[in-house]
Amino acid sequence: MNERIDALVASIDERIRKKSYGEQPLELYEPIRYIMNLGGKRIRPLLAILAYRLFKDDVDDIIEPVLAIEMFHNFTLMHDDIMDNAPIRRGFPTVHEKWNSNTAILSGDAMMIKAYDQLLGVKPSLLPTAIKEFNECALKVCEGQQLDMNFESLTAVSEEQYLHMISLKTAALIGFSLKFGGILAESGPAECQALQEFGHYMGLGFQLTDDLLDVYADKNKFGKQVGGDIISNKKTYLLIKAQECGSQGDKEALRRWFSGKNLDAKEKVAEVVKIYDRLDIKGLTEKAIGAYFENGLARLDAIPVPEERKKDLKRVVEYLIYREK
Amino acid sequence: MNERIDALVASIDERIRKKSYGEQPLELYEPIRYIMNLGGKRIRPLLAILAYRLFKDDVDDIIEPVLAIEMFHNFTLMHDDIMDNAPIRRGFPTVHEKWNSNTAILSGDAMMIKAYDQLLGVKPSLLPTAIKEFNECALKVCEGQQLDMNFESLTAVSEEQYLHMISLKTAALIGFSLKFGGILAESGPAECQALQEFGHYMGLGFQLTDDLLDVYADKNKFGKQVGGDIISNKKTYLLIKAQECGSQGDKEALRRWFSGKNLDAKEKVAEVVKIYDRLDIKGLTEKAIGAYFENGLARLDAIPVPEERKKDLKRVVEYLIYREK
Repeated sequence: MNERIDALVASIDERIRKKSYGEQPLELYEPIRYIMNLGGKRIRPLLAILAYRLFKDDVDDIIEPVLAIEMFHNFTLMHDDIMDNAPIRRGFPTVHEKWNSNTAILSGDAMMIKAYDQLLGVKPSLLPTAIKEFNECALKVCEGQQLDMNFESLTAVSEEQYLHMISLKTAALIGFSLKFGGILAESGPAECQALQEFGHYMGLGFQLTDDLLDVYADKNKFGKQVGGDIISNKKTYLLIKAQECGSQGDKEALRRWFSGKNLDAKEKVAEVVKIYDRLDIKGLTEKAIGAYFENGLARLDAIPVPEERKKDLKRVVEYLIYREK
Repeated sequence: MNERIDALVASIDERIRKKSYGEQPLELYEPIRYIMNLGGKRIRPLLAILAYRLFKDDVDDIIEPVLAIEMFHNFTLMHDDIMDNAPIRRGFPTVHEKWNSNTAILSGDAMMIKAYDQLLGVKPSLLPTAIKEFNECALKVCEGQQLDMNFESLTAVSEEQYLHMISLKTAALIGFSLKFGGILAESGPAECQALQEFGHYMGLGFQLTDDLLDVYADKNKFGKQVGGDIISNKKTYLLIKAQECGSQGDKEALRRWFSGKNLDAKEKVAEVVKIYDRLDIKGLTEKAIGAYFENGLARLDAIPVPEERKKDLKRVVEYLIYREK
């Protein structure tokens, strides 16, 4: 992204890789090391640190507590992968595949406790607020996962329901990450609130970008199978928007493609994308992402610190919104 | 136990029953209400309050944080029941049976977060210590569960290994409960340490009592099937002791009974109990329980508060050690 940001990500990554997480019994701690070292962009701790740097510079003071977010995030991945029966995570077998479900349940539990351990690096005067906010966010993430699971058995999900689900499952943790940086920097409540809202809109934008990339990514740059969400009948913003805007015939066709069994995957993706293209779902989604981006940046703009301090944060957000398209 | 203690248990129970735990989505929060209202003796929060009352009287100040222990305990039951494939808990279907495994995983996760929410009732100056100690204990409980699962695939478990496992899985939380009372009362480190050790020994004693009751309980008073641990091939103190003290023939017979398939359950229990009886495993176990009890009480005796203040705590411990035998 730029040299300063890359160095920061590298230092976060190094901390994560150097942690021991625990020794005995090995079956409990090895899966934690495994998932924490699978990589990932370390976006959430990065955003927390960049939010902190709007106000203060001594990043070393907060790097440990900020890792709580990455641990919590990976804990949710470990448990979500069991619930979603997912075989692969970042190109490697998921924990419940490599070991078994019981191991993934119990190691996940230990990981959540470890996340709270990281929060103990927060200075004592800030700890009650940090834990309260962390808990609120963590519960939202659980609520979002439950709603996402509920959606699997629903035939129709409205745009409003979908946005509510991703605001809990995805945006809440991005919002908390940014707010946490503000809390650690002891910025005022208005700044913390603005950071959280900034993160909330960015989180919605990221998720819609994910949904969009599943269909419209450059095959050569995209790490995953194009159309994977369509093949697995996942409810995405694109599908919901097409069900909303399409003709009766489109709706019927989508219903058939997303409920039929033993369909040819290639044909299914091609036919669904034809409908998306005709309804300009790509344009509609990009418009929604743009609006979230604008709304989010307006919150960041309102924070009264020199523009120079906001540069890295804006750079990361642009990178995430405009990645691989 | 006595009127004062019974009233305290009733007030803990009422608090637990009056809590809402959360509303939407219902699938996430309903299982939490369900398991929290299944009953149980509320021993852990009770012990914490009685430890607090060694030093202070204003119990209302600490009842909320102390419920963190009961929530954490029930969270472990919800997840352990999935891992152990247990159909029944306190006479009712387990959460993963009544709903499904995914619900039990996710509701359990939410419950652990809720436990940390309860800890926020601790006064801010004590919060860092409370969370640190809680985390240490919580990790031990996870380690103990992992060891217990590992034992299932081992043919032989030594007494030392078994005691290490139950000291983590069971005794750590009893030890923390008592220490937590001391922390909340702002008693000194020596008192907190003594309370933890008292709880540690009591926890070991309780577990051995559980093991003993499985075989030697009065059928009419015991709520569970007599010999259930034998039928399910569970490694208990009784079995480990018999494997240690028995002749080569006893060892061979035990190995056969605990690894054979399609055995007659009644005959199996009768034959195993015959071996236990011949080796006086009951006497040996009672001796071990007695020693833990003595060791624990010595720690309690060393705490410099008037004897009068220790009465209720001793009463509860005696009740737990000498129950239903």
